[in-house]
Amino acid sequence: MTTTYEPNVVLSEVEYTTIGKRPIRHDGADKVTGVAKYGADQYPTGLLFGKILRSPHAHAIIKSIDTSKAEAHPGVRAVTTAADFPQDGEHEDLRESLMASKKVLYKGHPIAGVAANTVHDAEEALALIEVEYELLPTIMTAPDALADGAPILHEKNRSEYHGDDNDTPTNIEEYIHHVKGDVEEGFAQADLIIERTFDTATVHQGYIEPQNTTVHWKNDGRVHIWCSTQGPVEVRDGTANALGISESQVVLTPQEIGGGFGGKFEPYGAPLAAYLSQKTNRPVKIIMTRTEDLEATGPTPGSHIVIKMGATKEGKLTAAKAMLAYESGAYAGSMIGPGCMCVFAPYELEHGDIEGFGVFVNKPSTNAYRAPGATNAEFAAETVVDELAEKIGIDPLEFRLMNAAKEGTRRIDGPVFPAIGLVEVIDAMKSHPHYDAPLEGANTGRGVAVGWWINGGGPSSVNINVHSDGTCSLVEGSPDIGGTRTSIAMQAAEVLGIPVEDFHPMVVSTDEIGFTAGTGGSRVTFATGLAAHDAAQDVKRQMIDRAALIWDVEPDSVELVDGVFQSKVDSELSMSFKELAGQIGGTGNPIVGRATVDAAGAGSAYCGNIVDLEVDPETGKVSILRFTTVQDVGKAVHPSYVEGQMQGGSAQGIGWALNEEYFMTGEGRMANSTFLDYRMPVANDLPMIDTVVVEVANPGHPFGVRGVGEVNIVPPPAAIANAIYKAVGIRMEKLPMNPVNIMQSLWSQNGG
Amino acid sequence: MTTTYEPNVVLSEVEYTTIGKRPIRHDGADKVTGVAKYGADQYPTGLLFGKILRSPHAHAIIKSIDTSKAEAHPGVRAVTTAADFPQDGEHEDLRESLMASKKVLYKGHPIAGVAANTVHDAEEALALIEVEYELLPTIMTAPDALADGAPILHEKNRSEYHGDDNDTPTNIEEYIHHVKGDVEEGFAQADLIIERTFDTATVHQGYIEPQNTTVHWKNDGRVHIWCSTQGPVEVRDGTANALGISESQVVLTPQEIGGGFGGKFEPYGAPLAAYLSQKTNRPVKIIMTRTEDLEATGPTPGSHIVIKMGATKEGKLTAAKAMLAYESGAYAGSMIGPGCMCVFAPYELEHGDIEGFGVFVNKPSTNAYRAPGATNAEFAAETVVDELAEKIGIDPLEFRLMNAAKEGTRRIDGPVFPAIGLVEVIDAMKSHPHYDAPLEGANTGRGVAVGWWINGGGPSSVNINVHSDGTCSLVEGSPDIGGTRTSIAMQAAEVLGIPVEDFHPMVVSTDEIGFTAGTGGSRVTFATGLAAHDAAQDVKRQMIDRAALIWDVEPDSVELVDGVFQSKVDSELSMSFKELAGQIGGTGNPIVGRATVDAAGAGSAYCGNIVDLEVDPETGKVSILRFTTVQDVGKAVHPSYVEGQMQGGSAQGIGWALNEEYFMTGEGRMANSTFLDYRMPVANDLPMIDTVVVEVANPGHPFGVRGVGEVNIVPPPAAIANAIYKAVGIRMEKLPMNPVNIMQSLWSQNGG
Repeated sequence: MTTTYEPNVVLSEVEYTTIGKRPIRHDGADKVTGVAKYGADQYPTGLLFGKILRSPHAHAIIKSIDTSKAEAHPGVRAVTTAADFPQDGEHEDLRESLMASKKVLYKGHPIAGVAANTVHDAEEALALIEVEYELLPTIMTAPDALADGAPILHEKNRSEYHGDDNDTPTNIEEYIHHVKGDVEEGFAQADLIIERTFDTATVHQGYIEPQNTTVHWKNDGRVHIWCSTQGPVEVRDGTANALGISESQVVLTPQEIGGGFGGKFEPYGAPLAAYLSQKTNRPVKIIMTRTEDLEATGPTPGSHIVIKMGATKEGKLTAAKAMLAYESGAYAGSMIGPGCMCVFAPYELEHGDIEGFGVFVNKPSTNAYRAPGATNAEFAAETVVDELAEKIGIDPLEFRLMNAAKEGTRRIDGPVFPAIGLVEVIDAMKSHPHYDAPLEGANTGRGVAVGWWINGGGPSSVNINVHSDGTCSLVEGSPDIGGTRTSIAMQAAEVLGIPVEDFHPMVVSTDEIGFTAGTGGSRVTFATGLAAHDAAQDVKRQMIDRAALIWDVEPDSVELVDGVFQSKVDSELSMSFKELAGQIGGTGNPIVGRATVDAAGAGSAYCGNIVDLEVDPETGKVSILRFTTVQDVGKAVHPSYVEGQMQGGSAQGIGWALNEEYFMTGEGRMANSTFLDYRMPVANDLPMIDTVVVEVANPGHPFGVRGVGEVNIVPPPAAIANAIYKAVGIRMEKLPMNPVNIMQSLWSQNGG
Repeated sequence: MTTTYEPNVVLSEVEYTTIGKRPIRHDGADKVTGVAKYGADQYPTGLLFGKILRSPHAHAIIKSIDTSKAEAHPGVRAVTTAADFPQDGEHEDLRESLMASKKVLYKGHPIAGVAANTVHDAEEALALIEVEYELLPTIMTAPDALADGAPILHEKNRSEYHGDDNDTPTNIEEYIHHVKGDVEEGFAQADLIIERTFDTATVHQGYIEPQNTTVHWKNDGRVHIWCSTQGPVEVRDGTANALGISESQVVLTPQEIGGGFGGKFEPYGAPLAAYLSQKTNRPVKIIMTRTEDLEATGPTPGSHIVIKMGATKEGKLTAAKAMLAYESGAYAGSMIGPGCMCVFAPYELEHGDIEGFGVFVNKPSTNAYRAPGATNAEFAAETVVDELAEKIGIDPLEFRLMNAAKEGTRRIDGPVFPAIGLVEVIDAMKSHPHYDAPLEGANTGRGVAVGWWINGGGPSSVNINVHSDGTCSLVEGSPDIGGTRTSIAMQAAEVLGIPVEDFHPMVVSTDEIGFTAGTGGSRVTFATGLAAHDAAQDVKRQMIDRAALIWDVEPDSVELVDGVFQSKVDSELSMSFKELAGQIGGTGNPIVGRATVDAAGAGSAYCGNIVDLEVDPETGKVSILRFTTVQDVGKAVHPSYVEGQMQGGSAQGIGWALNEEYFMTGEGRMANSTFLDYRMPVANDLPMIDTVVVEVANPGHPFGVRGVGEVNIVPPPAAIANAIYKAVGIRMEKLPMNPVNIMQSLWSQNGG
């Protein structure tokens, strides 16, 4: 059962015709009848099958690679190694990450690729490649990476952390330090200071569809890629960089996608497949197994976090300090930036100090996972906030409300908030029946937490082609992960006053549409939706001109009201959108609406959770009894998809909180690299997740839209930790809060 | 060997950077390496194979159709008949033409369709369908159709020819009468009047690739078609009309095309395949055999023509009268309209009378074939003109020059010519070395003729997406038959001053681009090229704005010269297209150029041929010894493609002149329905065809482009007939001028 909260603040009194309704998604029929084409569904003529040889070691020097026996395999058409790639230049790290030639830095690191007539031939050939390694000591966690005398993954790496122009090899690949006010002065004002240390495990996005790519390097020099990706232009550009060719020499046609959650922006297999294609003059397909996907794509970082916060006895936060160390994995590109932005973003703080480290470890390079970096940070910060409220003796929501960030609050990392909805979210949590409902039984507890995410904007392009029957094709470049074909088309439909069913939205290749950044950062309904809005306005202008031409009146005297073009002065002059569309052909040029945007003003979003749970004190198993998530979405364009995002993010957050982890052996091998052992929540692990949609309009969007997809993953671990405390009195400082860790905490509490 | 004529008139003194050069075509590599996807190359998952049961009779009533045994065939998935189609309404004729339910009107008329697991299953099933016919008398020629008491093909058909509101069943489906001046007065002024009667056989376009279609009627109600077609929107709309659905419910993705020449605008198999797909929930492919293609697609009409022309002894044409009767085939849609426009279009005539009939006969419905209707008409008229010149004693080119239409000439059918290039074409013919070259040997002759074609314009859409590396995707909707990806991109490249190799042109589906009329009427390089020009101007404007933004200057002060943006006032401010493109991402919206046009001002075109040939008086075989074609192309965007079009049209005209015909039996069966028996010219039948490109700028296009593809097929039969006269003294009045007809004329001349 889902409920809809009546928002405290609404954008305007406008009654929308389409926005806020729940039409059937355009891609639904194709998807439920098996017609939709996913990444693996491409079978071009002459297709070969590729497989990747991967390092069995987490850290080792490659002494030699001998592919001769594999090349002699009768089913093998081509073998590629790093030797095929450009050897120097600015993208050397990218190339080494795609195909190691010097050192392997994690188990699963690619070393060679094989293209063969069948997958089985390719697998046999992998076993024939001989690689000689010299093993090196491994680093598995951020504290180990930062320890004195730690083995160094990248000998050339330097960090400003060690001083300007220092020459100290280090595992620190990114260092951030945000300061606001004087944090020590802030702590001096506090009546209560709490400092705690947290550790979280590496987790994976766990999308249903493994990474895949089909690549054809054609004779005209252009590389064609068909794959499931969130980032058509990002994978295009990454592939081009790896191959040392110009980005437009790569054309990427995005297929339907079985989940991404931030993990499908990288060109993992494509450059390898490209060389295999170039050598064979054939298209080559590589589909990762689940184990490859877990071991060798980008999970989200494990982390080590220290939080120190102080408050007055009246409940005012006076200072907050954080040290966050996030694993970057094998190569640069950590999630520490957003982690530092998010950690204290829910609060108005006069004094703050945030120090962040992204550090190399012998795991695959980390990647985004739904509000990347924020969940780790908020798990830590919101646990400390909860403890402060408890110890001061103020209701935890009331405490958060007293200190809540609002319009005008300056974040510790600098920016000042425009209109935001944290107060409204906390108000909605407080007034939700769940918060006051009786909670019965032993070892049960109720916890709350909030979280923030910045959301993204950026470039998007939309074309709208008006057909003579009054329907419109909507051409866009944003892969549709969560129903965005429809949420984008709805915004165009709203402008034109025609049914969204009269739109035919389609996601096309990187050649066919203007530059459109990938589907991530909760940007698509906001930014591509804005482009659709603008393109529809462009259609509207042209059609008003056409109506004026037909009626021989001034365009200024014509308006579009509820899908009908009409004269403002002559009530006889009136024509529906469909009628006018039918006359386009005879009266002038075809009508094509076009808009490109570089959307600024993405509205950041807050989410709060109320969770009831029970802890089995004998096994440590945590059962979620009730879960309510409240989120400020700006404006819910399609409430069903918003609720789905909120439920999906909550489920992922619960999984991260309770069970998911890369269980690493001392040698750096993942011991649970299948979905049997990597424990994600399934339907019977979870109650129905109740959603409350709060709508605090984003002033940066014509319909008030904020990003929706990410922030909902942020509060669950903290809310669950806080509920566990209420249930059994232990403050969890480690994720996952699985039976082993719960029991260890219980035993430790009992002097175990 | 080809030569290039120095044009008498050029557009301007502008030196083009790209226009007029001969770059390699963008689709070349894909086509020569077998990667390009033609209509037959679509193999969607679950594909079924369709075959069509066709009438063995040319005219018969269908008494019954029993498909039960076919349906019981184990390999058959579905059977469709006319019963599946909408039964009434405005498109009944279309439906009956696609699938007969009442009468069959030609041998090959579709009666039922079968979808099966394999083509062989489908073929077996066709043999199991039982159809009972009642045979009717057949009509094979226009004179037979017009004869009193002729069997009537469509009982409901009426013609204004028989008077207003008459109730006379007739085979006349179209009647045209153009009058200028007083033709009898004109003949009264003549010193010499010649009247002759001509007959031409039905011929086929003879494209390499047979008609094909793959159709998937998906569960969302939309019908997806992949096929080789000249007319994506025309086949889309035809299919929608036949199925009784709205046109945008059909999406057509054009594949590469192996020739069309006017014959690939019809939805022949698509509606049948659509019903077979709907019944099976599978995609269905139908590929015609060559025999089906000859017997049941649209050839160009056989015709019966009477020409009467008069001239003074000084060589001035005083009057011209024509009666043209063109076969329409089984259903409406004759080529008589353009035939009547073209017949006397080369000449300035004060008095003219042109009467045209399109008439039903028991052959497949006729269709366009390269300048449709013009070749038949000009064969007749240019033979009579030649005879007038000869009898008056004036050089045939001089005679034509004396009477040539020019700017300001009003055609008999009404319109007044803008700038045209007939005088320049004839001048080029007169001054060509071929015209004065000695011609040796017995039974050899040299003939000349000219021809005109109106050329088309109309709606086209182009989008240009600027990539950050300074290359551009050019998205268009015009299937590329003769290199138009390149000839269109060249026009955009000219505007932007960047190499045409930096464009990636692509032809996309009817959903993905604004309305674009089909590739026919020689319109694409003209109209879609105009859209590309305009879209490039749109890119230029936006990039000038962006340069101005970056430099903080007024856009008016920035210009684009030879691919470099520069300040008009500050020589320090300069940036190449590529450099600026690289800065788009950081400075604002993506740049997408968009243009839609409804191109008026298509420049009509003249062509002239000089042909030397030898007639074997014992066999009647005609050997072409030398052939020069001269054409006004306005501006040759890509001269190699222009020359190729001129040579291709000449070759087709020669085939039409000498050998091609539908050889029909008395029962209305085509006796030569394979390429073994339907005799098209092959390489060793022809000499190298010499081309002379004349450039009289079309004032209706920014680069002066006229249509190029069609007019070159118009003069060859007349030029050859006139050369045969010179060789052996017979005036041929019948096409083809094959050995049988030549020998009959020779025997008749000799009192046979």
